[in-house]
Amino acid sequence: MIESLENQKVKYLSKLNTAKYRKKEKRFLIEGKHLVDEARKLGLLEEAFSLDYKDGYTQVSKAVMQKISNTDTVVTEIGLCKMIEKSDLSDHILILDAIQDPGNMGALMRSACAFGYKTIILGNGCVDIYNDKVIRSSQGAIFKINFINANLNEFIPTLKDYKIYGTDVINGEELDNVKNSFKLGIVLGNEGNGISPEVKEIIKENIYIPMDNTESLNVGVAGGIIMYKLRG
Amino acid sequence: MIESLENQKVKYLSKLNTAKYRKKEKRFLIEGKHLVDEARKLGLLEEAFSLDYKDGYTQVSKAVMQKISNTDTVVTEIGLCKMIEKSDLSDHILILDAIQDPGNMGALMRSACAFGYKTIILGNGCVDIYNDKVIRSSQGAIFKINFINANLNEFIPTLKDYKIYGTDVINGEELDNVKNSFKLGIVLGNEGNGISPEVKEIIKENIYIPMDNTESLNVGVAGGIIMYKLRG
Repeated sequence: MIESLENQKVKYLSKLNTAKYRKKEKRFLIEGKHLVDEARKLGLLEEAFSLDYKDGYTQVSKAVMQKISNTDTVVTEIGLCKMIEKSDLSDHILILDAIQDPGNMGALMRSACAFGYKTIILGNGCVDIYNDKVIRSSQGAIFKINFINANLNEFIPTLKDYKIYGTDVINGEELDNVKNSFKLGIVLGNEGNGISPEVKEIIKENIYIPMDNTESLNVGVAGGIIMYKLRG
Repeated sequence: MIESLENQKVKYLSKLNTAKYRKKEKRFLIEGKHLVDEARKLGLLEEAFSLDYKDGYTQVSKAVMQKISNTDTVVTEIGLCKMIEKSDLSDHILILDAIQDPGNMGALMRSACAFGYKTIILGNGCVDIYNDKVIRSSQGAIFKINFINANLNEFIPTLKDYKIYGTDVINGEELDNVKNSFKLGIVLGNEGNGISPEVKEIIKENIYIPMDNTESLNVGVAGGIIMYKLRG
């Protein structure tokens, strides 16, 4: 049982609460038995820690758990996972331009996973996906998606055999009339500002979702509707 | 210009940051010029307050604004609105059973407004809709929907001429095969637990959204997809 706050492993794990250190180490933390089980099943778990003595977990004291989890709420299990980065693309891909809200990012991961968008391209300005709020709201979808960080202005033009659609609240083809493609990329933009002007410039076609009385949908909802309609 | 934190109006407004007082007074606060303009246009605004001297606003000091808005972030405009409660039902209604996340509630309001669900029934355990986070994420949709608080066990059986669908991640009719009805009610359940057992018992039919590899969607996304598909 680890009890010392000065333990090197404890110090290491605690530092993983910053995006910078996660990126450097290519490791991140997950909370709760459900996620730990899922990560273990998928071979992504390196070590798990628990307040209780149990199989497959290193036992730690309450003070150590609090230091690792960096939160005041009671966490009983925590897991150390490795990030997996692959460069291969699925046939349907979701391309995110500065999605900033952790809840939206998590919801988009769940929908992407459910509707066959197994690759997500993270453009500049997106929230760090290994942030605890994103992981919590992704409900395990984070383990099943291949994430690629990219500069969208450079990356989108390389997708030569993909049909690429942006989203626009005014212009574009009505979603009901858009046909699915074998290779398809959907671009979603920032919560407040939509797709950035530089990215908009390189996208030739847009989808819009017909709405009454409303200027726009929540981006997580809009993405969910489009991916449901154009399933991979 | 109001400068005193002891001013009776300032004290009154500040108390509206609690759900209990909002309910008693049937008044709530909104933040930002965009929402104030919208509320004024719709006749729901009683008074507006601003840090700057300008038409249509009562000027207040920075300290007063901070006391009213109950936040550390800088708010420049705030509005006092009255709650409107009507008992008439739209032909498509959204029925919410213990939706607790403010972001999900706001996103559901936006989708409901966009897809013609002009009445939302709020069952027990739902987050207070006049909570500042809900209002912010509803993006003005809160002004355009008729909300009714009800005990769902008692209320749903009164909807005799409505087709009522619950949502279920396993059982039910695939959304693609569900036909729209002239009068339709969609029931969505709690983020963690789904529709409560007591409410489930009185619902005869369920919709499910086909998914790969995923246990469930975010409830705001699931609601958005269903309302998009079965527009009012």
